[in-house]
Amino acid sequence: MRNIGMVIEYLGTNYAGFQRQPHHRTVQGALEEGLATIVQDKISIVAAGRTDAGVHAYGQVINFRMTNPIDLERLQWSVNCILPKDIAVKKVFTVPEDFNARRAAISREYIYQIINRSYRSAFLGEISLFYPWHLNLKEMTKATKYFLTTADFSAFMRFEKDTHVNAIKTIEKLSVNEADGFITIEIRGNSFLHNMVRIIVGTILEVGTGKRKAKDIPEIIESRDRTRAGETVPPHGLILKSVNYPTNYCLLD
Amino acid sequence: MRNIGMVIEYLGTNYAGFQRQPHHRTVQGALEEGLATIVQDKISIVAAGRTDAGVHAYGQVINFRMTNPIDLERLQWSVNCILPKDIAVKKVFTVPEDFNARRAAISREYIYQIINRSYRSAFLGEISLFYPWHLNLKEMTKATKYFLTTADFSAFMRFEKDTHVNAIKTIEKLSVNEADGFITIEIRGNSFLHNMVRIIVGTILEVGTGKRKAKDIPEIIESRDRTRAGETVPPHGLILKSVNYPTNYCLLD
Repeated sequence: MRNIGMVIEYLGTNYAGFQRQPHHRTVQGALEEGLATIVQDKISIVAAGRTDAGVHAYGQVINFRMTNPIDLERLQWSVNCILPKDIAVKKVFTVPEDFNARRAAISREYIYQIINRSYRSAFLGEISLFYPWHLNLKEMTKATKYFLTTADFSAFMRFEKDTHVNAIKTIEKLSVNEADGFITIEIRGNSFLHNMVRIIVGTILEVGTGKRKAKDIPEIIESRDRTRAGETVPPHGLILKSVNYPTNYCLLD
Repeated sequence: MRNIGMVIEYLGTNYAGFQRQPHHRTVQGALEEGLATIVQDKISIVAAGRTDAGVHAYGQVINFRMTNPIDLERLQWSVNCILPKDIAVKKVFTVPEDFNARRAAISREYIYQIINRSYRSAFLGEISLFYPWHLNLKEMTKATKYFLTTADFSAFMRFEKDTHVNAIKTIEKLSVNEADGFITIEIRGNSFLHNMVRIIVGTILEVGTGKRKAKDIPEIIESRDRTRAGETVPPHGLILKSVNYPTNYCLLD
């Protein structure tokens, strides 16, 4: 069996998320069908991050096993020819036998894009949140510092019936950048809870509007209470930018 | 009568071009209807460049007359609220009585975007040409020099029954830039013939593939023969970037 790794780009607008679901159009479904058509075998994909409905990716990483001896460059070309236009295979490589795109990942980076000016973008509407209200970027940047920690981030997790998840996460990087009314919030962490990035962005936005203060962030984290954090921002501004692996999987760089 | 100027952004994908046509969805139609709804009067727009079906704009400039005393910031906000998501009003201002967005323009700048690598872009497919073949960028850049002239550009004009147009045009700037497989061809001229930018780009691409030589460009221009120039590239890679006006209309900057 060959173990194949791929870097995938997709516009999530027209998908019910990454993960395969019956009766829904998903990125995993489209990829597995496309790959199966080319390699003439059943394909089962593992992804580094199972993005929610409407969330996009520049650098999703997946792996799958196949027996077909097809040349990898030809595989990439052929699959790209039959995939929908909003999904593209950017890179293909052979990965070690034991490589699992999800378990091997040591960190994930996301970008959240915001149009912060008085008018919408005709070009970026599908991949950014239109937020025309005044934002205090200095306070937002101050807020980001308080997130750079290893902590129980339950306050930033979607309410779930099943609460048996390890909510202790490390946020390694969090920045707010602005240029010409276009704001990007970039975040890197070892892994993220369900909706965690979107709730963190929502909380930072509420610091930006003055609804809450940057210095209140540590208390919110400590509370482990979802109702204390900000609103969950919509999925369409969120992009899985890249996934990082230990250097012994250097092929992925 | 107030004479109002606007800078407009639009994604041309879902429009039969700028110019109003019966039974077709056009940018002009959408803008005139949106404006008429807000100012409660019939609106007739003049545009700097009547872009073809599928062509986009970052900085189209229009003007129109109205009697409504509405505050211009409010007009912009209200119109943006009712316009389709792929059209946005970026700026609004009062322009002099005699200002005509088309006649007053001294030059137009266009960008043509090309994805030149082995895989499509899931994000930029609607605003760029996917062209995975090898291109000699040095030769393409050499070709651009020969276009920087004032000449009869009939060889770069779509065949038309009506040939009573002044085909003498000046190209002021033409450049080819590449970064990570993303090529942009930027061109500025006083004005352009029908399909002129797309035929120039098509000709430069044919220099890039080796189908023709950079040094043959002057002969092609001199021939005034459409069959001598390259193919017309598709509209979806083309964007009207900006329109320039004399400094006495400095409001437009």
